[in-house]
This record gives sequence, structure tokens and C-alpha cells, in this order.
Amino acid sequence: MEIKIIGIKNIPLIKKDDDLSQLILKAMDNQNLDVDDGDILVIAETAVAKADGNIINLKTIEPGKKAHELAKFTGKEVKLVEAIIEESNEIVKVGPDFIICETKHGFVCANAGIDESNVDKGMATPLPLDPDSSAYQIRKKIEMNTGKKIAVIISDTQGRAFREGAIGTAIGISGMEPLWDRCGEFDLYGKELKTTSIAVADELTSAASLVMGQANEGIPVVIIKGIPYFEKLKNDTATINPLIRPKRYDVFRD
Amino acid sequence: MEIKIIGIKNIPLIKKDDDLSQLILKAMDNQNLDVDDGDILVIAETAVAKADGNIINLKTIEPGKKAHELAKFTGKEVKLVEAIIEESNEIVKVGPDFIICETKHGFVCANAGIDESNVDKGMATPLPLDPDSSAYQIRKKIEMNTGKKIAVIISDTQGRAFREGAIGTAIGISGMEPLWDRCGEFDLYGKELKTTSIAVADELTSAASLVMGQANEGIPVVIIKGIPYFEKLKNDTATINPLIRPKRYDVFRD
Repeated sequence: MEIKIIGIKNIPLIKKDDDLSQLILKAMDNQNLDVDDGDILVIAETAVAKADGNIINLKTIEPGKKAHELAKFTGKEVKLVEAIIEESNEIVKVGPDFIICETKHGFVCANAGIDESNVDKGMATPLPLDPDSSAYQIRKKIEMNTGKKIAVIISDTQGRAFREGAIGTAIGISGMEPLWDRCGEFDLYGKELKTTSIAVADELTSAASLVMGQANEGIPVVIIKGIPYFEKLKNDTATINPLIRPKRYDVFRD
Repeated sequence: MEIKIIGIKNIPLIKKDDDLSQLILKAMDNQNLDVDDGDILVIAETAVAKADGNIINLKTIEPGKKAHELAKFTGKEVKLVEAIIEESNEIVKVGPDFIICETKHGFVCANAGIDESNVDKGMATPLPLDPDSSAYQIRKKIEMNTGKKIAVIISDTQGRAFREGAIGTAIGISGMEPLWDRCGEFDLYGKELKTTSIAVADELTSAASLVMGQANEGIPVVIIKGIPYFEKLKNDTATINPLIRPKRYDVFRD
């Protein structure tokens, strides 16, 4: 079994109203890369937020009382803190240098996923409003253009509890299930697996992140070829929701 | 940029005292796969534990008072609970159907990483005693045999806080740094990155997990080819420790 993870080069800096599907197809064409059935495109959330024009101008933000308190406590810039509050359902944990939130989508991550890198100074990109819908639209356009069945994942880079370092993490998906439930299958010794459910979408995103980079590589889109169980996971109406653990089931939420 | 993730086929079921490096080289040879400079081998921890003979016979375990209490509370088998306690520095969280521990190595994971799948019935594999040392020994033997400089990662499949599904997670490493600190580099807009530290070893392990599988695939070893920044991360004395967040810095530990 061999999987290929290929960075798509020469995608220009994304501007508002750019059609990402067309930029991707053109760049792939320049690179002599075909779209095949079962390919998985992983797209950096920053690219989606920029194409959506979903960029926060920090200068125009008017911080409220809570933002002033949190900014004082965390040492973060007060306008950024107001933006974080506005993007969140709930502030989960706050410390001297961090704010961990549940975003409007339900993701638990630092700064509600707001990113100040790879965007003009004074600007910040929040997570896309509806990453599943963005993934769906890009997928549908690429499928219409190519006649192939693919999946699209929207990726972010997020920290974790208990471990240092951030990793590629899926925040939106279309075309395949994000979770592979393997309960009921059997191990090498014929024993039934009881609890193995694999977050394939996150593993694919981490794999793509190895190529994508976070600095000035300029590779916001990666294509993954050769996933042999794509057919099993293929689903036209899949969303990212199965990866989000509801608060009531999470033992690390208060 | 293109990365290849290749499953190494036809590695036999591992037995005590098997030389993993020889089994891997032989299987790669049969598959016409060369070892190249910069290759990264990802090896399932179960394979290492078995080769070490580090298998727990649950029948011979004598559960103590704490194990009986925890077994009653969690519904888990009491001998397994005693094994979990013996493998742990600390029980982090307990609920009606789970025990999350800090293992002797410092990893926070369910059941102290003890695995009852892919081993004979009545047996269980704890995490390898010293995964860094296992990785080092396998790497050194393969480097001596081939004259190439590689890295070896020992992998586990672990759940996470806040998100459903398990993912491939690095528990031992040799030959490269597990964490890529990119602070001080610049983004596409020339702004200096402030906080980006990437857990490359975990991303590599998740990528390998896409090929490895957890059921009856029988692919305990995966080779990753084409990581272009291997030279930057190459380090003869690297360990997994930079990925472990010390308890005092972890906001989700009590």
C-alpha cells in the first residue's frame, strides 16, 4: 500500500472572491497532476477564509468590558481578545498567556482559531464560517470539472492537551466520513475490535501538514492519492461533526 | 514536494527476541524497497513490545484494593485495571467506562497504553519500556546494514481530549527531533512567526497510521520517503521528551 502526499505549487496569494476550485485545477494542470477518483484535497483554512473575504480588520474592533479584563489577564492585545470572544461559544480556559475557546463550530482550540500569520498586518483570519459548506462547494466544482469523485478537507494547525506542538487538524470535510469506526472488525488473532474508531480526517490533515508548512512555503493545498479505503468512507453528505466530542461527554471540560 | 508513505508487507507475526531491524530489511528487500538517506521508519509499538517479550499475562496478575475499587467504578476487568495501575505514574481521570493515566514515560493516555488487540487471548501489551531506546537500537542496526542515515519512530494509536477518534501518535523516536520550532521564521507576508512549533513526529505517525491500520492489515511498519526538511531535524541524540508537556504547564491537569 502506497500513499502519495503532493503539494500543489504556484497557487497565487488568495484574494476575496477567488474561485479556489479553479485556482487548484489550474495549478494542478501546470504541475501535470491529474485528479483521480478517491483523491483527497486538503486546503488550509486561511485560503478559504481569504477567498470568503472573511478577514477581521483589528483596527475597527471595539473591545467590550470582558475583552479588557481578559486582555489584562492574558497580556494579549485587547482588540484581538474581543475578536476571540466574538468567534466563541464559550471561553474554556484562560491563563497568563493563552485563551482556549469553544468556537461557534464547536471546536476547542486556542484563540478561537484566529490566525494573524499569512495575512496583511493589522488583519487576522478567523476560521471559515462554515468549513463543511466551503469543502462541499469546492468539491462539487472540482467533481463537475473533472467527472471524478473526491473528498475535500479544510485544515487548521492546532495545539493539543498534554502534548507540545501543534498538528494539522481537520475543521471541515466533504465527500467522505471523517471517522472510521472499526468496531466489529477483527484483529490479526481473530479477536473482535471493541473500541477502535480512527479519526481518519485528522490523520489525513496531519499528513498534508507535513507538506503544507506554516511559514513561507506558500503551499495552501495538498493532494493525497492512494487511500485504498476511500470507497468505504465515501459519503456525499458527510460533515465534520462526528469528530467533535460534545461537551457533556468530555471529561476535560468543566 | 511529494512524500510517499509505503506499508512494508509480509512482516511475520513478531515473537520474543525477534530482531526487528532484520525482519524489516528482509521484508523491504522482498518488496524491492531501498533504504535511502532521510527515510523515516514508523513502527507500531505492539511489534516492539512483542519483540521485547514485554507482554502481560493477565491471568497471573494479583489485583490490589485500588484495582478492585477502580474496576467496580469503571466496569473494567480487575486484572486489566491492576496492570494499568502498575504501568502508571498517576491516574489522571476516571469515569464509568474509562481510565486515563500518565504512563511511566509521562504520556497521558487511556489505559496507560495497554493494548489487548493483536496479541493472544488473555495477554496484553503494555507500551514498550523505553521506546526511545528501542527506536535507537533499530535505527543503529539499519544504519549499519545500509550505510544510510534514517529516523525511527515508535507509534501508538491514542484518543484525544475534545475530539472523537484515535490518531497515530509518536511515543519514541531516534535520529530526528520530534518538534520543529519555527519561531523566528517568516510568513508569506514577511511577518515573524511567534508561536509555531510543529509536532512533526506526531504528524509523521498519523500519516503512517493511514497505511498501518489497526485491525488485521498486518502492516506494523511503514516507511516515509521524501521529507525535505529531514536534514534540519536530524539529531543523533533526539528523544520523544520535547513532545511531553510537563504536568505543571498543562492547564487540563488538576
